[in-house]
This record gives sequence, structure tokens and C-alpha cells, in this order.
Amino acid sequence: MTDILRRGRLGATDDEVDEFLSSFGSDRRIFDADIEVGRAHVVMLAERGIVSDDDAAAILGALEEVRDDGFDALDDSHEDVHPAIEAAVVERVGEDVGGRLHTARSRNDEVATCIRVALRDELLGAMRDVLALRSALVERAEETDDWLVSGYTHLQRAQPTTVGHHLLSYEAALERDFGRLTDAYRRVNESPLGSAAFAGTSFGIDRERTAALLGFDAPTRNSMDGVASRGFALEAVAASLNVAVTLSRLCEDLVLWSSHEFGFVEFDDAYASTSSIMPQKKNPDTAELARGKTATVQGALNGLASNLKGLPAAYNRDLQEATGHVWDGFDAARGSARVLAGVVETAEFDREAARETTESGFVGATELADTLVRETGIAFRTAHHLVGAVARETETPTAEDVRETAREVTGEELGIDDETVERALDPRGCVDSHDSYGAPGDDGLVSEARDALERDMDTLNSLEEDLELSEERLDEAVEEIK
Amino acid sequence: MTDILRRGRLGATDDEVDEFLSSFGSDRRIFDADIEVGRAHVVMLAERGIVSDDDAAAILGALEEVRDDGFDALDDSHEDVHPAIEAAVVERVGEDVGGRLHTARSRNDEVATCIRVALRDELLGAMRDVLALRSALVERAEETDDWLVSGYTHLQRAQPTTVGHHLLSYEAALERDFGRLTDAYRRVNESPLGSAAFAGTSFGIDRERTAALLGFDAPTRNSMDGVASRGFALEAVAASLNVAVTLSRLCEDLVLWSSHEFGFVEFDDAYASTSSIMPQKKNPDTAELARGKTATVQGALNGLASNLKGLPAAYNRDLQEATGHVWDGFDAARGSARVLAGVVETAEFDREAARETTESGFVGATELADTLVRETGIAFRTAHHLVGAVARETETPTAEDVRETAREVTGEELGIDDETVERALDPRGCVDSHDSYGAPGDDGLVSEARDALERDMDTLNSLEEDLELSEERLDEAVEEIK
Amino acid sequence: MTDILRRGRLGATDDEVDEFLSSFGSDRRIFDADIEVGRAHVVMLAERGIVSDDDAAAILGALEEVRDDGFDALDDSHEDVHPAIEAAVVERVGEDVGGRLHTARSRNDEVATCIRVALRDELLGAMRDVLALRSALVERAEETDDWLVSGYTHLQRAQPTTVGHHLLSYEAALERDFGRLTDAYRRVNESPLGSAAFAGTSFGIDRERTAALLGFDAPTRNSMDGVASRGFALEAVAASLNVAVTLSRLCEDLVLWSSHEFGFVEFDDAYASTSSIMPQKKNPDTAELARGKTATVQGALNGLASNLKGLPAAYNRDLQEATGHVWDGFDAARGSARVLAGVVETAEFDREAARETTESGFVGATELADTLVRETGIAFRTAHHLVGAVARETETPTAEDVRETAREVTGEELGIDDETVERALDPRGCVDSHDSYGAPGDDGLVSEARDALERDMDTLNSLEEDLELSEERLDEAVEEIK
Amino acid sequence: MTDILRRGRLGATDDEVDEFLSSFGSDRRIFDADIEVGRAHVVMLAERGIVSDDDAAAILGALEEVRDDGFDALDDSHEDVHPAIEAAVVERVGEDVGGRLHTARSRNDEVATCIRVALRDELLGAMRDVLALRSALVERAEETDDWLVSGYTHLQRAQPTTVGHHLLSYEAALERDFGRLTDAYRRVNESPLGSAAFAGTSFGIDRERTAALLGFDAPTRNSMDGVASRGFALEAVAASLNVAVTLSRLCEDLVLWSSHEFGFVEFDDAYASTSSIMPQKKNPDTAELARGKTATVQGALNGLASNLKGLPAAYNRDLQEATGHVWDGFDAARGSARVLAGVVETAEFDREAARETTESGFVGATELADTLVRETGIAFRTAHHLVGAVARETETPTAEDVRETAREVTGEELGIDDETVERALDPRGCVDSHDSYGAPGDDGLVSEARDALERDMDTLNSLEEDLELSEERLDEAVEEIK
Repeated sequence: MTDILRRGRLGATDDEVDEFLSSFGSDRRIFDADIEVGRAHVVMLAERGIVSDDDAAAILGALEEVRDDGFDALDDSHEDVHPAIEAAVVERVGEDVGGRLHTARSRNDEVATCIRVALRDELLGAMRDVLALRSALVERAEETDDWLVSGYTHLQRAQPTTVGHHLLSYEAALERDFGRLTDAYRRVNESPLGSAAFAGTSFGIDRERTAALLGFDAPTRNSMDGVASRGFALEAVAASLNVAVTLSRLCEDLVLWSSHEFGFVEFDDAYASTSSIMPQKKNPDTAELARGKTATVQGALNGLASNLKGLPAAYNRDLQEATGHVWDGFDAARGSARVLAGVVETAEFDREAARETTESGFVGATELADTLVRETGIAFRTAHHLVGAVARETETPTAEDVRETAREVTGEELGIDDETVERALDPRGCVDSHDSYGAPGDDGLVSEARDALERDMDTLNSLEEDLELSEERLDEAVEEIK
Repeated sequence: MTDILRRGRLGATDDEVDEFLSSFGSDRRIFDADIEVGRAHVVMLAERGIVSDDDAAAILGALEEVRDDGFDALDDSHEDVHPAIEAAVVERVGEDVGGRLHTARSRNDEVATCIRVALRDELLGAMRDVLALRSALVERAEETDDWLVSGYTHLQRAQPTTVGHHLLSYEAALERDFGRLTDAYRRVNESPLGSAAFAGTSFGIDRERTAALLGFDAPTRNSMDGVASRGFALEAVAASLNVAVTLSRLCEDLVLWSSHEFGFVEFDDAYASTSSIMPQKKNPDTAELARGKTATVQGALNGLASNLKGLPAAYNRDLQEATGHVWDGFDAARGSARVLAGVVETAEFDREAARETTESGFVGATELADTLVRETGIAFRTAHHLVGAVARETETPTAEDVRETAREVTGEELGIDDETVERALDPRGCVDSHDSYGAPGDDGLVSEARDALERDMDTLNSLEEDLELSEERLDEAVEEIK
Repeated sequence: MTDILRRGRLGATDDEVDEFLSSFGSDRRIFDADIEVGRAHVVMLAERGIVSDDDAAAILGALEEVRDDGFDALDDSHEDVHPAIEAAVVERVGEDVGGRLHTARSRNDEVATCIRVALRDELLGAMRDVLALRSALVERAEETDDWLVSGYTHLQRAQPTTVGHHLLSYEAALERDFGRLTDAYRRVNESPLGSAAFAGTSFGIDRERTAALLGFDAPTRNSMDGVASRGFALEAVAASLNVAVTLSRLCEDLVLWSSHEFGFVEFDDAYASTSSIMPQKKNPDTAELARGKTATVQGALNGLASNLKGLPAAYNRDLQEATGHVWDGFDAARGSARVLAGVVETAEFDREAARETTESGFVGATELADTLVRETGIAFRTAHHLVGAVARETETPTAEDVRETAREVTGEELGIDDETVERALDPRGCVDSHDSYGAPGDDGLVSEARDALERDMDTLNSLEEDLELSEERLDEAVEEIK
Repeated sequence: MTDILRRGRLGATDDEVDEFLSSFGSDRRIFDADIEVGRAHVVMLAERGIVSDDDAAAILGALEEVRDDGFDALDDSHEDVHPAIEAAVVERVGEDVGGRLHTARSRNDEVATCIRVALRDELLGAMRDVLALRSALVERAEETDDWLVSGYTHLQRAQPTTVGHHLLSYEAALERDFGRLTDAYRRVNESPLGSAAFAGTSFGIDRERTAALLGFDAPTRNSMDGVASRGFALEAVAASLNVAVTLSRLCEDLVLWSSHEFGFVEFDDAYASTSSIMPQKKNPDTAELARGKTATVQGALNGLASNLKGLPAAYNRDLQEATGHVWDGFDAARGSARVLAGVVETAEFDREAARETTESGFVGATELADTLVRETGIAFRTAHHLVGAVARETETPTAEDVRETAREVTGEELGIDDETVERALDPRGCVDSHDSYGAPGDDGLVSEARDALERDMDTLNSLEEDLELSEERLDEAVEEIK
């Protein structure tokens, strides 16, 4: 390798070292970003008179050619995509012109800006993917919000709820996950461009201008921080981990529910697979794989955190290895969200099989205890104790069972009749009476979820529009010069 | 163990299993929270007529006695703090009264609410700790914002900057970290109370009311999500990890700078220690330990994420083990932030030793290249190439060295005079001319940092005031009943 | 704090910093080790004439008093346990005698040796705990090795196997985990004592001798490595993570099997718990918590790895924070192994319920395909295809179903009779015929497991005997001097 | 996708799901392994009469053609490499013959075996890479084993040692790392082939035979464990993490030493790089990147551990995602070891600059204290205290300084002369006298390292020879049939 960075100072390296040092493989992810960053930078250089309009126009033209030729046309003997693009520009317009592209910037601020531009897109994409899944969950919840099913704690049948209520529990978690992505977006969306190596520059640049041309909210306010910090990436990956953890829990439930034993969900063929040896099986592979990808996001977060820990200021080459973790994390989390939206949309829920889970396991025990409290005035703890004693004997107690146990345990007569006990133990009645805010009997469950979903769709649309506007702004500014 | 939960249903367990299952050791952290949650819950039960005013008054009185007696007075043979507090109440007012405390709630929503209350305090504390460190950084930056020092990349002397600029790079990172803590706070500050086991309740509770009495912004909107999710904790620990990573990088620099080799910082005795065998040494132990504690926060985040991954809804006992990671993470991050505030406040910077780092290593090379661009009109890449060739020969070039190299490399004569070269290579002049936004020569550096700091102090004050108001509100509501 | 380390060099620190720097809380774990290390060191110093026999005898006496008084009697204003013990010795015999204890060693080699001594015990304990669980698994497998149950892949019923075969799959994994613990033990069991700060010493010490007195296999062979490396701890925690991962998978199965849906295991009351609100439930809390503790071990490994990463030689204070992760990891893994041994020993397996899982889900499909291969000579892939097509129609095919499908799919007549099909689909026949090595029908399954268990018990006994011998050797050497 | 696995049972999936489910991208790593596993399996099937010799010969021929055509010739519309290879065989010899390849095995045992075969190669490669680095360290240590340099603790100059002693501290750590790789190898090197889906098979297979043909030490002893466990991979990656952590610490030292401030190492141009903007710089990028790759290995370990945690038996699709972490971990660790071997081999150590680090920082303080102990008979703690007091006044004390401080501190006259003090403070004398085992003055340091290196080279050679023998055995057995 004898690239434009090294010729002045160092001898040639051998191939293995080149390969070790090269980030070319993963730089594909920031190719488009680097072109955009270059365009905004050159526009500003021209506007501030640091580069002549003619030179700027030539460079801008060359950059567009390089973009149109695509990443694969670059000379991959360069250490990374940045000198490769610069070299491709120089090749087109000569060093005396193309050599001005890198005026008043450094690879340090360049790459930090590119990562933010590309990560911004990942965050928007992740928001979109999360919304698609939430939309599918709300859709299915609307359909199933009065389908009885047992809720589980400790994987034991616990109390009756509805399929819709259960599905919406994931939607509610995903709303917070969406919020984390938007908060991360705000902190990603600041421009380090113009920080140069870390000490800014003596050229009269305009960082506000390049920030605006690239759709950033503002320039970062300390040039050393601008190039040295990757906390924005750590936050973004942590947000994607929170998404993935939510997904993994949904997956676990889907895998359980589609087992023969639980048996109230069947995956659509498109989202299942079969065995190489057991032809009768229909496996929920997409959900399993999505669950496994949660671990991949966790691995990515760790790779990133451990990479950053204890690095001195300002730039260290370790950071090159940090970026790949970001893409790995988002690929895993986003791919899972997208595929799960399809799983949820197409899965077949079995209403009767779901209902049957409320028929045994004494899932009305809590409601029975609560009913005893209301009807007989005994304390909850006493009622809980009493129903516990009943449960030792039978899972389907009659009023007489309850009264008899009361006599044994408390020595007193309990004024409770058959009808009251039956009503308490009826899953449908139980669910309907559980109408506290957010509970399965709460009428507003689905509509609140839908409202939240629409609010977040508006948020996403607004962020995307801002970016489109800045792209137009940049195109116009480029036209102005050319 | 034969506690009030088990007597009805299960036989006795042996001591080892009790110890394994017990979370008593770490429940100290949520003791106060559980009392507050209990008070708000009972107030609401009385207001809604679910418990009589007399019973409520008795329970509230008992809860206050339990609080005053403190955590250590509890019977630690209980599995965790929640039944222990209930039992302590029952002991004081009898089961017929005290047994009503747990009406319309479950340990599942109780513990989720307690964790949020306690975590809220940790987040506020972390914000305070971060502000203290930022304040110390701004203070020292103000004092040193024109003290020359070399900035480093790849741990090589790179370009001149100022000590103040360097210190403020950490302050800027901590501003984002502060923002993450406040964003996490918003999502932590929702009340799951009233979600009961996961299916809400048939009692006519008022979740808005308990939320308000406890200072929460709102109740969570799905009762299963309310008890099953710990994403809020994952986010909070991730935010504390981002703080810790920033701290670890500051520590690395402080350790480097206080080495004999760098030698421009000396730790105050209060923050250093000596050797058991090498009496001459003064070691920056606080900074090393804080760096090591970053790993502890990372471990905590991992323990938490791996715990949550793949759990089915709603509650699983795994979650008991999850909570400890939260406190471990915050203890490590907050302790480090606090001690580093002291380190930064008291460290002695050596102005002359710092300046000397700009005297060699050819740290003016970039500025020389930039100057060539401005003065002679050659392209930056050409100038960079040329200065690189100069660097092969000497670290302290004269104008003639530059001109000679230009002749060899480009075959042309470079119109650059001695004075211009000297000016470019003078660290002071270089720093002053680097006046782009956020650069060491930017006059607004310190005042912008101070503004950001004040803004965030206001944010923190406002959050703390909100909590104080809700505490008063709860006290008043309790008085109303008693 | 004005301890014996600091008085010569540094001013006083304030309380918060003291607390931050103190490792006293977790040093309880190495108190006994430090006494033993001190005894061996003093014996060697006396034997080599570096300390007089009289002084040595006095110090040894004092050390034993300190040991008998216990950890809690130490003055906890010291930074850590090492100066606290030295101070307690000095207090008893004066500085002119007690001040010789630390001759020719440093806290760096002292603490590295203490950690190894204490970790050795944890490793032996972990081996013991793993053996107890393996023993329980073999015991239960012997009882259930012909109890039919469906095996699962993708949580779908797949093929019939036996409960015993399933339980032994965990035993086999634990054999490898045991092997990892013993391998880790070998590398832990080397003595860094005498490495001093990192550069050894000019005193004429005998490192072989202290190694032998403390039961180490050998002294470490580079003194800087001896104090700087914690790879031995990383390996040990990684081994405990592998144990924990195996346990977590067993837990997952136990939780599943004890659900109402799977329903063929019931936990003994001693290992279950009930709900604060749902009195009918019996929850497999011990297994859930053990599963959650796997994450704690993972967190510990990460905290440790991230701590060590990138530390320069030789000793850095970060290492103080590293040690706690080791104990956290072992506590979590060992506690889980012990409690699971009890769970497995006492759990009630329901033979009939287990058998019923083989009655549906077409778990004989693979064996049917294999039978077609053997009986009709068609290729396996063709047979697999054919049985897959059968499975689309029915889960309980007759021979005629198979023949009909064959006609449709291959256009040919399949020579297969009713009896052959029935035999293939009979779970008992299927399991018996699956007699390849390690399969459920392999007669040697249990006896091989028992052999492996006994081999490893011998290994453990032998390691423990070696340590006992070295303890006797040390006691004798001490007696010699006193 | 309508592949041979799905046609019987499930409808088509869409492209996105296919891509999500596909592991084709990373299956390149096990392509060769799968061919070998297929060859051994078919040989055994023929030998046992399960497949006719003619069919076996045809399949073996086809497998070799597939191998020769290479991975890229496979039809990548298959879910993974296993059906793709089977399909390629079927394409060549028809389903009636090629459809017999998968007789008596499942993808579950097939993939588990392939991963072990491929991982075995990674482990051997890692051993080789570690040996190359150790060899380079020993080489350079031999050259520099009497070059004075200060050792550091807390990054403070502490005591004099030699460059060779320091380098060998890493070699000693790498010896243990090598041992971990070999121990992992033993547990990886067992054959799950023949475990089929998890329940073995009713075909009369010979698992010992396939194990031997593939160079495995033995078949795994429980067929469910054989397909379900990935602990062997977790151990291998943990071993590679231990390697990486050792490397990261070497890197940290190399980066420090090549800084302007430490300044006693210069990287060879081939292993350094320069700046895009600061032409004078020579950055130790290879060492930085290797340090960063440690975090990547840690991320891989985490991704793997979190993936495996809590999976029920036997096979779950999550495991597909697990394998990639293994290769990521080994790529990062091995690449770093290889490049660091080159860095160490070619780095230029500056003897004089190294020596200068012993000239200040009072690095002889410990030796002075030790000397006082020996010469004057005072206790070490007293001597340490006294030298500490001296250090407050000067870093270059004379004998009179010491005597005067002694008078002030102890009130007594210290019988120590100038010559003795000077000798203690002379770095060369100090290092020479530090001749305890493993210390810088120990003459055997280098030769012991060389012996250890040769022992481990023998170990590696022997493992590699075993594999070569088994390859010949397989080739012969194949020839026998063809």
C-alpha cells in the first residue's frame, strides 16, 4: 500500500498488516454519508472563500461521479473509505483541485460526522421498524381484546386476562423503546464537522452552515469532544438493546404459545420452518432467531463499551473497531423487529385453545380472595390465607368448600353464597370486572395504544421531513456553486 | 421459615434455600420506598372507600412506626422486605386491620413501584454528582483556558491546545450524559402501582391518585407491562454506563498526566495514596479505581440485560436478581463521579510543564500545512505531503527547510518567508488562530459551558421540587385521614 | 485515616475518599488466606535467616491471635485487610518485631497470592457443588431411564426419549464443566509470593519453599507477571459461567416441565414458593432465580474482563475492583448448583404425564422415515419428503395413509405393512431401537455417567488431600520455629 | 425459497424472511468441515452396510466435486450450507443415491460436528499465533535482558527492572493462555456425529469410527448433550478472550512506550501509520487496533453467553446466531496476535532512553529501605517509614539525608555509610541484586521462557500430526470404497 497519506512519511507495509488495519469492509456503511459530508464541506469552503468557486464546482462534480460509480468502484488498497474517496476525486480533477477537498478538516471529524449521519438513518429505520411491529400488535389486539387466556407468572397459570391485553403489554414496552430511539437521535444529531483533528482550525470555516446543510440540529460545542466521544453511539446501541430485550420476551412467549403444550398460536408457514429429519414439525424459527439476535445486540453493546473504556483523548485507532459494533447491533435489532411484525400480523391465534387455559389451574383464586374481602369484610391477608388453604384441597372449589375451610382456619362462619363464588371463579366475569386503568377489563386499552402509536408516527414523520428539507437545501447550495 | 405467604400452601424450606431465595440483603435500598408506596396506597384505598378511614389511619400510623424503627428492626426471616413490612404492620395493629394493607395490590406491582421510587433518587443523585464534576471542570477550565498544552492523538503529541479546552471536552461529554439521565428519569417516573399481579384488580382503585401522591408523572398504561418490564432500569444503567465511560477517559488522561513522563498534574494528597513498599511514590489511586469501576458498571448492565433477555410475561423470579445490578451500577458510577469532582478541584496543574509538551513533537505541523495552503495557494493535500516530507528530516524546520523540501518534492519554488513559518510553528499563535467554533481559540468556550451547566442545574432543581411537592401532598393526605 | 502506609508521605484524606478507596468490605474473603500467606512467608524468612527465629516466633504467635480474633476485630480504618493485619501484629509485638512481617514482600504479591489461595477454595467448592448436582442427576436418571417422554427441538415435540436420557444430557455437560474447573485450578495454583512489587527482591528468599508451604504446585516464573496478571481469575470465572449456563438450561427445562401445560414435574415444597396474591400457585422460584443468577455470573465475567483490558504493567489500583467480580461470580454459580441439586433430588416426576407427551405431535415421524428407508430401500431424503407429506394430513397415520401418500408423491407403490408402521410409531419400540452410543436406548448410559462421576470424585479428593498435606506441612514448620 | 427441506410441509416464505433465517453468509467457515464430515459419515454408512458401496462411492465422488467447485458454487437460496451441499450432491447423482447422504444423521449433529471441526482449526491456529508472539518476545528479551528500564505501578516509576524482564512478563502470561487453548481443544475435540436430532438413531451406526476418521478423541457420551451444548465454544472463546486481554495490556505498554514522553520504543514503519492532517506523526495504530479488538472478543463472548443462557433442550434456532460470535472472537484475537508478533519483532528499543527512566523518580527507594533493614537491623516497616520521610524532601538523597531523617523520625543514629546508600540507589546494582526466582536479576529468566516455548511447540506439533494422520485415514477409507 502506498496511499496518499503515507507516501510522505512511512515505508510500505505488508499485506497482512494492511488487512489488519483496513476498515474498508465495513466502510460501505458510511460511503453515502461521506459523499454528503464532503459536499456540505466543499459548499461551505466555497461560500467562505477558502476554496474558489471553480475548484469547488469541480470537486462537487467529481464527488457526484464517485457517488454514482458506487462504493465498489473505489480503490480498496486504501486504509479506509475516506482517503479512497479523496483519491477518486483527485484522480478525476487532479491533486491541485481535488487536494483541496480535505482543507480545514481531518479524518477525525470527517469520520465522526459520517458515523452520525449513517447512524441517524439507522435510528430512523429502527423507529420505523418498531412502529410496524407496534402497529401489528395493536391490530391483533383489537381483534383479540376479549379473547380469554390465562396470564402467567413464574410460567404458572395465574389469573385470566385477554390475548389483546397481553399483546398490548409488548406494545406499551415498545412505546418506551421508541422514545429511547428518539432521545438518542437528538444527541446523535449534532455535527462534529469542523472540529478537525480535535483543535479546530485557523481557516475561517462556518460550522453552523455545514451542520444545517447536513440536517444536524447544531454543531457540537467542543472540538476535542467532537472527535473523541462515541457516547452517542453507545446510547444508540443501548436503545437498540432495549428494543431487542423487549422483542426477546415477545419471542419467548410466541415460542411457548406455539408449542404443542400451550398450543394457542400457530405461525404462518412463511415465518416457520421444518426439520431436516422430523418432517412433522413446524418450528417457530423466526422467533427463536430473533431471540438469539438479542444476544448479538448485547454483544455489540459490550464490544463498544469495552472498546471506549479508558481511552485517552483525543482520537485513538481503537475507535475504528468500535464502529462495526454499532452496525451489528442495529442490524440484529432491526431485522428482528421487522420479521416479528410479520410474525404477529400473520400468526393464527386459536380462541378456544386460549380460553381453555383459563379453565384449570384455579386462575380465579385471586378474584375469589378479593371477592371474600368485599363480600364478607375480612382482611385481604386473611382471605388470601383462606383461599390458599382451599387451594391445597381442590382447584375447583364450591362455596361450601370455601365455607368449610373458613370454619377450620378462622373458626368462624363465612357468609358467602354459591352464586358469588361462581361469579368470582368465572374467567369472563373476572376479566370484565378487572377494569382498573390498564387492566384487561379497561375499555380504553386499545384506543390508548392507537393514540400513542399515532403520536409516535407523527414524531417520526417530522424527523424525516427535517432531513428531506436539509437534503434539498444542500442540493440547492451545490447548484448555486456549479 | 413459616411466613405469612407460605403458611397456607407450602411446607417449610430449609435454611440454605431460604438464604438462596432471600433478597433481604439488598432490600435495604427499597425500604423507605416501600413505606411511601404503602402510605400512598392506603390513602387511596381510604379515599375510595375500599378500606375504612379508621383502618387506614391505624395502618398509616403503623407504617410510620415501622419506618421510624428502621430496616434493621424488621424480621429478616421473611423472603423479602415487602412481607416483612406487612408483618410488622400486622404485629402492631392485628391482622384484621393490617391485613388490609395489601388489598388491591400484589408484590409484583409493589416491588416494581418501589424500584422506580428508589431509582428515581439514584438518577437525581447521579445528576447532582455529574453537575458537581462539571462544575469543577468549568472552574479549572476558566483558570487554565490559555495554558498551552499539547493535544494527543494515538498518544502522540499532535497539535497545541489549552488545558482548559481539554478539560471542557469532558464537560461537554458530561452534558450529554446528564441529558441521558434526565431522559431515563422521565421513563422511570411512571407508576405501575395498581397493576396488581399483572391483570389489575376488580377493586375500584384510582391509579392516577397514587401516581400523583408518589410524584410520578402518570400511571403506566398496561398492567402486564407495568409489572413485567424492567427496560426502565436497563436504560438507567445504560445512562450510568455512559457517564462511567466518560469518567474512565478522564481518569486515563489524569493518570497519564500525573506520571513522571507527562508530569503536568499532581494529585492532591487527599486523592492519592502511596505504596506498601515504595515509599517515594504518589499514586493516582482514585482515578485508577474510578476507571476500574467503569467495568463494574458495564458488568452490571450485562448482568441486567442477560437476566431480562428471553423472560416470558409476566413476572418471573429471575427479576429479583436483576435489581441488585441496578444499585451496583449506580454506586460505582456515582462514587466515581463524586470522587473525581474532588480530584479535579484539588489537582495541581503545572503550567510550565504543560507548555513544554508543545515545544517538541513538531505539533505545529498541521498549522504549517494550513499556512502553506493560505499563503502559497497550493492544495491542502500537497501541503500535507510536503510537510510530511519535512517531518522526515526534522522536528524543528526553518523556512529554508520547507522551501528546499518543496523544491525536491514538487520541483517548484515555494514563496514562503521565515516569519510566516515561525508564526505557524509558534504554539501560542497557533492556538489563538484556531478560533473556529469549539476550538481552543474560541472565546466563548468557557461561557458556553457555564451556560449549559446552569441550564442543567435548573432542570435538576425543578425535578427535585416536583418530588418535594408530592411528598407534601402525601403528608397532607395522610393527615387528612388520621 | 492516618495508617502506617501513609504517615511518611501523604496528608490525611477525607472520609468519602477513604470509603471510595477502601476494599475492606470485600476483604473478608481473603482474611484467612492472608494469615496463611503471612505464616508461610515468616517461616521462610526465619529458615533463610532474614528474620531471627525469636522475631519469627513472636510474629507467628501474633498472627494466630489475629486469626483467632477474627476479621471483625481488625481496625477497619485501614485501606484494606493487609495493613490491618500487619498493624494488628505490630500492636501485639511492637513495630521492631512486627514491622519485619512485610520484609521481602509487597502488597502486590501478597494480595495476588491471597486471591489465589481463596479462589482455590472456591474452585474446590464449585467442583464439589457440581458433583452433588451430577450425583442427583445420575440418581434420578437411574430411576427414570426407561420413562418415556418427548424430546423437544424448537420447543416442539420431536422424538421420543426417556426422562433419564434427558437428565443425563445435563450431567454430561457438567462433566465438561467440572473439567474446566480443574484446569482452571491448575493455573490458579501457582504462587506469586516473592514477586514483591514486581521486581522480586534482593533478600535471599526461597519462593519454592513458600509455594510448597501454601500447597501451590510451583512459583510463577516471572515476578512482574506474578503481580500484574489476573488471567487466572478470568479463566476461573469463565469456567463458573460455563457451569452457570448449563444450570440455566436445566432450569429452563425444569420451569417448563413444572408448568401446568407440560406438567410432568412438581417441585418439592422446600424448593418452591407461592404468590402474595394468588394463593393457588406453586412457583419454581429456585430454578428461576438460578437462571437469573447465570446473568450475574456473566456480569461478573464482563466486569472483570473490561477491568483488565488495556491496563499497563505492573500493578494498577483498578485491580482492587476486579477481585469482587470473582467472588460475585462464584457465589452466584455455586449457590445455584447447590440449590439445584436439592431441586433435582426432591422433584416429583410424573411418569404417566411424561409418557403422554409422546402420544401426540407425531413424534414417531423420524423413526417412520428411517423405517421406510430400511424396509423399502428408498433414499432417506425421499422418505423424509414422503413422511412430511403424510404429516400435512394427520398426526396419527396408518400404513394405508403412508401408502396412499407414496402413490401421490412418488407415483409408486410402497411395500409397507400395518405392523411395521405401528411398530415405528410406538414410542417404546422407537426408544428401545434407538440404541446407538449415547442414545436413549443405549444400555450403558447410566453406568458411563456413574463412572465419569466417580473419576471426578477421585480427582477432587486428590486435590483436597494435597491441600491438607500442605497445611500440615505449614503447621509443622511453624511449630519448628515456635 | 422452495428447498428440499420445505417442499413437503410448508409454503414458500418471502425474501426478507429467507434472508433473516439464512446463515449462508457465515457458513463459508464450515464448508470444508461439512464435506469432511459427510465423507466420514458415508464411509461409516458403507462399512456398516447401511448404504451400499456403489451408492457410497457415488456420493463420495460427488462430495469431492462439490468441494472442488467451492463454496461459491453452492445454491445460496438454501437456508444454510448443509442442505445446499446435499442438494449439490443430489444434483450430481440423483435423489435415489444422493438422498442417502443424510441417512442416520440430522442437521443438529451435523452442524455441531462441523463447528467442532472448524473450531479445532481455529484453536490450532491461535496456538500457532500465540507461539509466534511468544517467540518474538523471547527473542527480543534475550537481546534486552540487561537493558535497564523503570518498572511502573500506577503508571508511576517504581523500581528498576530490565526491558527483557518486562517483555517476558507477557510471555509468561501467554504461556498460560496457550495452556487454556489446549485445554479447550481437548473438550472441543469430541464428536457429536451420530447423535442425530438428539435421540440417536435406530440405524446400526458406529460413532467411534466416524470420530476416529475425523480425528476426534472420542464420541460425546449423551446424544442430547451432543447437539444441545455449546459450552465447548464458550470455553474456546473465553480462552481467546484471555489471550486478547494479555495482548491488550502489551499494547497499552507499547503505545505508552512509543509516546514522546516515554520515548523508548519506535514502531517499525510497517506497523505504524500517519495522520491525514498531522504529517509529522507516527502512530502505533496496530497496537491501538489490537487493543480495540480485545473489546470485540469480549463482545463475542457476551453475545455467545447471552445467546445460550436459558435455552431449553435440545436444539433451538437461536444457536444459529451463536456460531458467528465464535468466528468473530477468534478472528479478532488471532489477527491481533499475528500483527503484534510483527510489531515486537521489528520495534526499535532505545537502550539509552530506557535507562534514563531509572535516573529519576527515586526508583531505588525500595532497595534503599531493604538495604537499611539488612545493614542496620531495623524492621522493614520502620525502614519504609524512614525512606518515605526522606522521599518528602528529595528524590536523590545522600547518606547524610538518610541519617538526618533517621534522627528526626526515630531519634536514633543510623549506622549507614555513603557507599552503601549509593550502591542501593544505583539501578544496575539494584537490578543485579534482585536475583530472586523470576526477578530481573534471575539468570534463568530467558532460558526458562525458551524451555516453556519449546514444550508448547511440541504440544502443538503433536496435535497437528494427529489430525494429519486422521486425514490420511479418512482418505484411505474413501479409496477403499471407491
